[in-house]
Amino acid sequence: MNEEKKSKISRVAGLYFNDYSGERPFELWRSFDKTMAKDLSVFITGDMYAREVLPHPTRQLVAVAALMCLDKAEELRLHIHAALNVGCQPKDIAETMFQCAIYAGIPAMNQGLKVLREALISKEMWPLDPED
Amino acid sequence: MNEEKKSKISRVAGLYFNDYSGERPFELWRSFDKTMAKDLSVFITGDMYAREVLPHPTRQLVAVAALMCLDKAEELRLHIHAALNVGCQPKDIAETMFQCAIYAGIPAMNQGLKVLREALISKEMWPLDPED
Amino acid sequence: MNEEKKSKISRVAGLYFNDYSGERPFELWRSFDKTMAKDLSVFITGDMYAREVLPHPTRQLVAVAALMCLDKAEELRLHIHAALNVGCQPKDIAETMFQCAIYAGIPAMNQGLKVLREALISKEMWPLDPED
Amino acid sequence: MNEEKKSKISRVAGLYFNDYSGERPFELWRSFDKTMAKDLSVFITGDMYAREVLPHPTRQLVAVAALMCLDKAEELRLHIHAALNVGCQPKDIAETMFQCAIYAGIPAMNQGLKVLREALISKEMWPLDPED
Amino acid sequence: MNEEKKSKISRVAGLYFNDYSGERPFELWRSFDKTMAKDLSVFITGDMYAREVLPHPTRQLVAVAALMCLDKAEELRLHIHAALNVGCQPKDIAETMFQCAIYAGIPAMNQGLKVLREALISKEMWPLDPED
Amino acid sequence: MNEEKKSKISRVAGLYFNDYSGERPFELWRSFDKTMAKDLSVFITGDMYAREVLPHPTRQLVAVAALMCLDKAEELRLHIHAALNVGCQPKDIAETMFQCAIYAGIPAMNQGLKVLREALISKEMWPLDPED
Repeated sequence: MNEEKKSKISRVAGLYFNDYSGERPFELWRSFDKTMAKDLSVFITGDMYAREVLPHPTRQLVAVAALMCLDKAEELRLHIHAALNVGCQPKDIAETMFQCAIYAGIPAMNQGLKVLREALISKEMWPLDPED
Repeated sequence: MNEEKKSKISRVAGLYFNDYSGERPFELWRSFDKTMAKDLSVFITGDMYAREVLPHPTRQLVAVAALMCLDKAEELRLHIHAALNVGCQPKDIAETMFQCAIYAGIPAMNQGLKVLREALISKEMWPLDPED
Repeated sequence: MNEEKKSKISRVAGLYFNDYSGERPFELWRSFDKTMAKDLSVFITGDMYAREVLPHPTRQLVAVAALMCLDKAEELRLHIHAALNVGCQPKDIAETMFQCAIYAGIPAMNQGLKVLREALISKEMWPLDPED
Repeated sequence: MNEEKKSKISRVAGLYFNDYSGERPFELWRSFDKTMAKDLSVFITGDMYAREVLPHPTRQLVAVAALMCLDKAEELRLHIHAALNVGCQPKDIAETMFQCAIYAGIPAMNQGLKVLREALISKEMWPLDPED
Repeated sequence: MNEEKKSKISRVAGLYFNDYSGERPFELWRSFDKTMAKDLSVFITGDMYAREVLPHPTRQLVAVAALMCLDKAEELRLHIHAALNVGCQPKDIAETMFQCAIYAGIPAMNQGLKVLREALISKEMWPLDPED
Repeated sequence: MNEEKKSKISRVAGLYFNDYSGERPFELWRSFDKTMAKDLSVFITGDMYAREVLPHPTRQLVAVAALMCLDKAEELRLHIHAALNVGCQPKDIAETMFQCAIYAGIPAMNQGLKVLREALISKEMWPLDPED
């Protein structure tokens, strides 16, 4: 891996996940297999997240939609943090979940909103003003 | 249903789906139950799609992400049309699908890209210039 | 397998699927492995479907709900036939699908309603009177 | 919303969920967006659950089937309470889950049965007599 | 059930799950319905797991792949134990999960690896040497 | 990409998919984005499939299990071809699907067996001798 890609990975990972206190996927992968951890990291962070076709806030709402629909609470929490870190408003994230209820059903939305509430509490951004 | 909501539903539905030649969900619902068709339409188009928290292009990329992850090819086609109609570029839609491969796996992305290609062909926007 | 179980399997299978013209799962299984085909048939039809805790119409609406939510169009068609054969009304089956839209999302319901419409057409029960 | 619909929503919600001590979805939605909470409530409880095509016990077994297949433990618990409140027997609910194992697999059934057991314990209806 | 099948079930169940300290599915089923518990056990353990087409280690990696993709953490834990009990190496199980990330996405793999790590800790086989 | 990785990718892809006449995913990706196509190919074929922890036949049965459970018929077909190309017997592939029915349900297995039958027909390996 060249220096440019390394620094790109570290910049993007920092921007998205800097204040996330849970376990980082990279550490999990590395405890099983160092080569695989490096390959996954190059592909996901270096090749994919560092692309510049979509602006970061849009990309994070896309992640929120996907992870809510797939019912992956742990990664959803990670990308809610990333979304807030790149400038998405709590209302934008909730709206993404409201809309996805149409496609994935109400229970998936309820689970998503609970994860969002926990993330907002942990960042001291809760309660919202529901009249906004 | 008051006149304002009726006209909102018809404006949003027109914007999103005007050039879509497949069967409209509303006609399907109506052939089973007129009350249910009206209630679904008020909720989905009138209450949800007419909200203005997210701009239309973002909302459509959210729909693309959700429907690709949930493997719903028919509705994905409908929302790819809507995405193109509100100004999303083909590259934005493909990028949304590339990113969702991380969360939903490569086969879900492949299926999504095929639906996108068909939609672009039907709108005479294919082939793309892959060097863009 | 004793005679009593054999005759139970054949009675239940006849009641549910007699007029179904598609491929029967048993024939598919048998073309791969005769023992497995027999074991699957004893378990599914002999042990499970022949139980008498739920009345047949309720059991078939349960099947419709499950298969619509799981997006299994082929088996859904089979159990829509079974539902109609044990006395469920088309409106009951559609209602089951409307309700499941809350849990599984609108695209899953749309797919379910299309399969129901095809089944009703094939049994010359279409169109419904949507005013009923 | 007119008075008739309001009173319908409150009657159905009372019948189904009166003794449920967990968080109600409506409160969750309302903490994010009051308009959305009202629209969801009108659609789900007012438009859908208040329909009278299926009797309440059948409707709740349909919900149990759907939510077990979709692996949504939280809403499953809510609808197991509703099923017991409208007169479903514990054996009917378990039977619904046994049958759904055919469509959704054994692990989904195991998870469903555990949620059912917890609900029965919380209502002091456990253990069942497995010989019944 | 004849003696031969009974002893086959008990041998296979012993081989796979002997040191598993969580609740056995059979006890869960039996607390609801004794006949169903027996029928499920005969089908799953007696008919299916006792077959000899695939060697036990391959069969357990197949189970790991399926359960990771289906996101069933509880049964995944059970079959990780079974896999280790029939001679699969921790690296084989992790490799199965790395590969399934291609099909099911990274979040499903992350959840799988966490369940694997817990199982290895409970069997005092953690940490691995990631350089192996 | 260095020469060694290039030649590894081409060897593995040749071994697995040489006689597959459907569209290759790489061509699909490339028609949208050349960089993404290269990155995906390096990661999936170069980094993942070229690993040597699991023998090729085991790896392909893992793929069959995953893709059947995830209901991805198109990729399932591709990996059934790969499985046959690296020496898996048709009976091994069917057995993998029988077992996965326990986890994913009977309808997923039925769909898998149909894809397998088509693949065997296209390779002139059908019918099997079900007495084998």
